[in-house]
Amino acid sequence: MGDQIKYLLDESRIPKHWYNIQADLPKPMPPVLHPGTMKPVGPDDLAPLFPMALIMQEVTTEREIEIPEPVRDIYRVWRPAPLFRARRLEQVLGTPARIFYKYEGVSPAGSHKPNTAVAQAFYNKVAGVTRLTTETGAGQWGSSLAFAGALFGIDVTVFQVRVSYDQKPYRRALMESYGARCIPSPSTETEYGRAVLAKRPDHPGSLGIAISEAVEIAAQREDTKYALGSVLNHVLLHQTVVGIEAMEQMQMADAYPDVIVGCTGGGSNFAGIAFPFIGAGLRGGAKPRIVAVEPAACPSLTRGKYAYDFGDTAHMTPLTKMHTLGSTFTPPGFHAGGLRYHGMAPLVSHLKELDLIEAVAYHQTECFAAGIQFARAEGILPAPEANHAVKGAIEEALRCKREGRSETILFNLCGHGHFDMQAYMDYTAGKLTDQQYDEQELAMALSGLPSVPEPA
Amino acid sequence: MGDQIKYLLDESRIPKHWYNIQADLPKPMPPVLHPGTMKPVGPDDLAPLFPMALIMQEVTTEREIEIPEPVRDIYRVWRPAPLFRARRLEQVLGTPARIFYKYEGVSPAGSHKPNTAVAQAFYNKVAGVTRLTTETGAGQWGSSLAFAGALFGIDVTVFQVRVSYDQKPYRRALMESYGARCIPSPSTETEYGRAVLAKRPDHPGSLGIAISEAVEIAAQREDTKYALGSVLNHVLLHQTVVGIEAMEQMQMADAYPDVIVGCTGGGSNFAGIAFPFIGAGLRGGAKPRIVAVEPAACPSLTRGKYAYDFGDTAHMTPLTKMHTLGSTFTPPGFHAGGLRYHGMAPLVSHLKELDLIEAVAYHQTECFAAGIQFARAEGILPAPEANHAVKGAIEEALRCKREGRSETILFNLCGHGHFDMQAYMDYTAGKLTDQQYDEQELAMALSGLPSVPEPA
Repeated sequence: MGDQIKYLLDESRIPKHWYNIQADLPKPMPPVLHPGTMKPVGPDDLAPLFPMALIMQEVTTEREIEIPEPVRDIYRVWRPAPLFRARRLEQVLGTPARIFYKYEGVSPAGSHKPNTAVAQAFYNKVAGVTRLTTETGAGQWGSSLAFAGALFGIDVTVFQVRVSYDQKPYRRALMESYGARCIPSPSTETEYGRAVLAKRPDHPGSLGIAISEAVEIAAQREDTKYALGSVLNHVLLHQTVVGIEAMEQMQMADAYPDVIVGCTGGGSNFAGIAFPFIGAGLRGGAKPRIVAVEPAACPSLTRGKYAYDFGDTAHMTPLTKMHTLGSTFTPPGFHAGGLRYHGMAPLVSHLKELDLIEAVAYHQTECFAAGIQFARAEGILPAPEANHAVKGAIEEALRCKREGRSETILFNLCGHGHFDMQAYMDYTAGKLTDQQYDEQELAMALSGLPSVPEPA
Repeated sequence: MGDQIKYLLDESRIPKHWYNIQADLPKPMPPVLHPGTMKPVGPDDLAPLFPMALIMQEVTTEREIEIPEPVRDIYRVWRPAPLFRARRLEQVLGTPARIFYKYEGVSPAGSHKPNTAVAQAFYNKVAGVTRLTTETGAGQWGSSLAFAGALFGIDVTVFQVRVSYDQKPYRRALMESYGARCIPSPSTETEYGRAVLAKRPDHPGSLGIAISEAVEIAAQREDTKYALGSVLNHVLLHQTVVGIEAMEQMQMADAYPDVIVGCTGGGSNFAGIAFPFIGAGLRGGAKPRIVAVEPAACPSLTRGKYAYDFGDTAHMTPLTKMHTLGSTFTPPGFHAGGLRYHGMAPLVSHLKELDLIEAVAYHQTECFAAGIQFARAEGILPAPEANHAVKGAIEEALRCKREGRSETILFNLCGHGHFDMQAYMDYTAGKLTDQQYDEQELAMALSGLPSVPEPA
């Protein structure tokens, strides 16, 4: 038998707790502010949108949060997810580095998103919520929440960015197969959507607008709450099952990462793989380098400002301090739709400010090239988002080759590309270009950031 | 913790042998005949198309065929595949039956097809073959061989039925991402393709024509061989890893199936799950009922004739005795493309003649309804082909409910539906109909079967 390439954990090893990095932060998070009063928001301010259990997860500094058994029960459909040693890729690259990857594409929705969708659906179900609203771009998150809603018997309404709704109908079909209702945004179902359409009837939509619509519906109805697929602390918390499993699997492989690589859009899959390792470092353990890879066309960590900003376009959300390109910034239409967000998770942003993580940006064509190289070596075709992590890992492996160092690299392969074949077709046909954002628009968007008085 | 739902085997439990049911047949297989001489073909007759190792697997009666380590090495990317207890589906159906399913959608191509693609690529590689040709309809098989070819460094040329090539470009994009060349069939690259196009320049193609083209190319070149994704004995042999793993996993669940259900097109995923259990029964063990589920629009087992026929349209293949609708029969264009074949694997046909298996046919809309019900209960959206197995299993579970019997049902969920969302969109939109084949065309095709003298 050849050397081991796959590290599988028994079902009993699905983590029993999520890891909360807020317990180990050297400096606490800046408060979330109410945009009217500029005062820190309290749990009650968020109660119209989220069940109290999730609000408490947003702010707690407890290190371990127990994963409820009904959530673990559904995690068992695909968890523990495999960890692979990328031996064939190592050979192709001729690198002395050892490359490992955690593969989250084994979930029924094909990505890491169900890790939090299932948890959020559970806490809402327990709180008596009968309907969840959310937004989605290409549809990874919407289809994951639709999946979770089906299993818990919660109606799911998804506001999908209209351009994706029209151009990429297959994720929508998956949502509808799970029984969710999918509405192109901007829509006539909300006041905000109608206002947007009144100004521009053919508006293509944006994630920020779709969030506004989903929030508006949830805020109005007692039985309806809102669910977000990334950015928020509790979402990142739920994703830590990825890293907790990976830690145990690396131990099986008798290895510990020198470098951990993840792609960042809102920040949740990156947090999932990285936070448990960062936390172990903060508690005195080894400190791997942690590399966030973002798209050069939407570079919130590398080019954004660390400032208070809104999460949505209609400015209905509270203000959070994060790396942001400005809530009015519209990223160009590149293919990794899951990374097209103006902001970054406040927790990830905070860690960046504390120099606990690095960030790097790549263009989409070099990421697709990396994805193709990975697929031909390892057999798994990554999602366009995941290609950024692949690119980052390959660059680290090539650095090791140049430096003659046999470091251990771990990255998160957060999803498969089976729903993204149009992007691969365009890439193969040479039709993909590396869009640049408009520097002037970015400057405008950044100058429009809300002005927040410095806390005393 | 709830009751167990997933039965995982350690990587070391990937089978070390394939199971060859020819060792246990109460009556040997009818010989394969040369269409010119009507005499049994020998290994040399097949040597232009296949490497000798695969030809020997076609005819051997050895019970266990060792799986080469390089094949097991790649199997480790997704094998052992999980076995699930469908507890939520059982609850929805209110059945006293226990339903288990083996899930082959975890492979990088999303179906069971890589089980044989990897094996075939390996034996060809060892024999010095540098290029493989094959045919594909919707693309499940083509993408699986492209995947295997990429890992073994073999060029893969896929003749894809033109109507699928034009209408379903995403599987093609997957093949091309793996580095394969994909040609719409009928093509101008073969004599037979040119002859077909001369008669009808806009011919939409068929699996039979694509096979003829792939065989023509392979037969002409020393360095090129042909690979088939189903039907042949060695293909079915490779798929028995599915059933061998399932047997061990059922043991973990402390259960043994009373009924085994699989969908049948060419017969390979059905054989994979069923043969190891049938073999155990033939050697004195328990004898579960074995149910093959086929599409009512292409019902080779339930409406075909058990007779010698060609595997392709140009009549370049040898004659095999099988259940066939006639090699000139064109099934209507339903969505389970993997089940649109005029014939049935000779081994499966032989077992049917020996009354070791049953067969039943369902229409596509009732199969899609079953698939949606399954997805909302279990969270996994099946491929349209797999929906036939889901439908068959649900029918068995409902029979158990009517009869008050708590039988154990096992079925093979051979692939996910992520590449088949157009079919689900059409179904949800009410656009899918249950096509009927043309009875007159079937009668014609059957009357045109080659006449073969009865053996002495």
